[in-house]
Amino acid sequence: MKVLVLGGDGFCGWPASLHLSARGDEVVIVDNFSRRRIDEELGVQSLTPIRSMVERRAAWREVSGRDITVVELDIAQDYHGLLELLATERPDAIIHFAEQRAAPYSMKSARHKRYTIDNNVNATHNVLCAIVDSGQDIHLVHLGTMGVYGYGTAGMAIPEGYLDIQVPTDGGVVETEILYPTNPGSIYHMTKVLDQTLFAYYAKNDELRITDLHQGIIWGTNTRETSLDERLINRFDYDGDYGTVLNRFLMQSAVGYPLTVHGTGGQTRAFIHIQDMVRCVEIALDNPPTAGDRVKIFNQMTETHRVRDLAQLVAKITGACVEMVPDPRKEAFENDLVVRNDNFLALGLNPITLSEGLLREINETAGRYADRADHSRIPATSLWTRNQQAGIPASIAGTK
Amino acid sequence: MKVLVLGGDGFCGWPASLHLSARGDEVVIVDNFSRRRIDEELGVQSLTPIRSMVERRAAWREVSGRDITVVELDIAQDYHGLLELLATERPDAIIHFAEQRAAPYSMKSARHKRYTIDNNVNATHNVLCAIVDSGQDIHLVHLGTMGVYGYGTAGMAIPEGYLDIQVPTDGGVVETEILYPTNPGSIYHMTKVLDQTLFAYYAKNDELRITDLHQGIIWGTNTRETSLDERLINRFDYDGDYGTVLNRFLMQSAVGYPLTVHGTGGQTRAFIHIQDMVRCVEIALDNPPTAGDRVKIFNQMTETHRVRDLAQLVAKITGACVEMVPDPRKEAFENDLVVRNDNFLALGLNPITLSEGLLREINETAGRYADRADHSRIPATSLWTRNQQAGIPASIAGTK
Repeated sequence: MKVLVLGGDGFCGWPASLHLSARGDEVVIVDNFSRRRIDEELGVQSLTPIRSMVERRAAWREVSGRDITVVELDIAQDYHGLLELLATERPDAIIHFAEQRAAPYSMKSARHKRYTIDNNVNATHNVLCAIVDSGQDIHLVHLGTMGVYGYGTAGMAIPEGYLDIQVPTDGGVVETEILYPTNPGSIYHMTKVLDQTLFAYYAKNDELRITDLHQGIIWGTNTRETSLDERLINRFDYDGDYGTVLNRFLMQSAVGYPLTVHGTGGQTRAFIHIQDMVRCVEIALDNPPTAGDRVKIFNQMTETHRVRDLAQLVAKITGACVEMVPDPRKEAFENDLVVRNDNFLALGLNPITLSEGLLREINETAGRYADRADHSRIPATSLWTRNQQAGIPASIAGTK
Repeated sequence: MKVLVLGGDGFCGWPASLHLSARGDEVVIVDNFSRRRIDEELGVQSLTPIRSMVERRAAWREVSGRDITVVELDIAQDYHGLLELLATERPDAIIHFAEQRAAPYSMKSARHKRYTIDNNVNATHNVLCAIVDSGQDIHLVHLGTMGVYGYGTAGMAIPEGYLDIQVPTDGGVVETEILYPTNPGSIYHMTKVLDQTLFAYYAKNDELRITDLHQGIIWGTNTRETSLDERLINRFDYDGDYGTVLNRFLMQSAVGYPLTVHGTGGQTRAFIHIQDMVRCVEIALDNPPTAGDRVKIFNQMTETHRVRDLAQLVAKITGACVEMVPDPRKEAFENDLVVRNDNFLALGLNPITLSEGLLREINETAGRYADRADHSRIPATSLWTRNQQAGIPASIAGTK
């Protein structure tokens, strides 16, 4: 299968590209390298030392004997470049990771909000429009987020995208199926809601074949393939903008920083290990919808946990201390979350659980590169409104 | 009240601006004049001879003794200009008409799809972001569309934005209220769905005060104010891209062209006269939500009609002939539509009905300027997919 991986230089895109290349797919990475430029903008680097794309490719060729094509292209800006690429490559599938993916970054300032909206919406729409324009039958797999459902307490298990509802009317009860009502918690999450709307339309009007993966929070860093050579190492973000909660706890414990729990830590979230993410992408690729089908939606997550419980778990394993800090986000302090993920389980996903993987992550990644951390970049400081406060531990603020 | 009218040079924006100025509001029109540029692009002009903004302003000053400020600004592109304008003007309210508003134009080509998405989403998001950024408490009134609800047969009366639903779960029935599920029928309509998502988020996160008007298809051309002087005349679009269905029938009858009914004409749509539109905008301005409220949604329509019935009605009044033509849109050929509009009625709207206004429209506008029409631009030729066909009457195609 020939697969374009849009955003193939990123945290999810790179391990997914290698995973597909390893199983024999012909992989073309398309990236504008924006994530590396944002490292420069924020003045903080991946905890793991990631290599240039030139080195990554060369290392992969050496290790696997396989080649990956790399095309530098901004799909949100260069529509004609994208259309030409489809004409040249004629891919069977496109995996679309090419969006700004950090909620805190999307809330930093008006500029960051506007960039995230403009970049993500135009990127997704350009891909859809170009597939129609090309006249090709290309399966589009998109990385969405569990966050489109929102993090209130639903009072039910979150279904995979679609919800059966009943509407009482004067003429009796109307039964129908709808896209699960959205309730995004940041500008970033909202762009994935906008994406979902675009997908529903293009599946209906143009009969595009689209799979949308509503992904939980990734934990872990490396996969089978990125572990084969240090030059293939994946990025590990620990800063307040791009670091995801569990990876941040692992890193904080490794460097002797308090595990910073926002608010009461009563937020319940869905999680998935990065190795399972690449497996899910593979399963999605191999099980496309048929032209004319509605968008196929999978919940790409394997476990749910309350944030304060995760902090306690990491503290117990490592002896780190937990510190409650102000919540820089405007969100429900406490919520329940039950999620259906039957589709991937039925198609053969065999999840890696927190209990088996946590310690290895701490030893192999967070601990190993701890000396590369800039402690001043650990707190989450992007505020959702002027009424929120940065998540700086009192114990650290007090030492300044 | 000081009101910014974004898109105040357009078909709805201009009469709304005059209406508010006439009642004593301080009106600032903000426009990039894109609609006039699209006239140039399409090579077709308004049936009515519209004047330059300079002449329009001067005529209004002469007729009413009131002044309207005009600012040329592209709100989708020039965020800092917009922010500066808010700082200078400190408006009480913003009325946002500044979007590409024609479904057929939005479907003409990849370029038109991409322009509509990029322009409309960034325009709306920039307005929201700038209100937050300004720190001002500004009521935003937005012109949406009935088309966000979709034109399938709902099996119920369409409520004003929100729907009470029941979800059967293992633990019993969960009752909740949701935004009415969307089902847009074109890229243009989809942008209004995206807008709705943006509004819900900014009302929640930033407690912005937002009113969204889900407007039916406008018919009629002039209002009390635009009728005061010919130099104030409003635009009347009759071409296949920008002409709305009833105005097109009126104009077709006036020039002796068949009334072109797409498909079976079984499409049922909601309508509102342009005079009622400006009154609704006024009512919405005077009844803002409170900070912290959900988005206030009104259905801004007064009647529903099946397209073929409208054609018959116009034919009966004028003696025109009706001709069925291929439907260039991908849509349900037949649908029912029942719509609640209790909110505006309760607040004093006294609708102008088709039965009282139709004949006047034909005599005063369509008939009067009939000699300005370019007949070749009447058929709708923008196709929703490659499988659709242009709406060209066989009787006309046969004469070529």
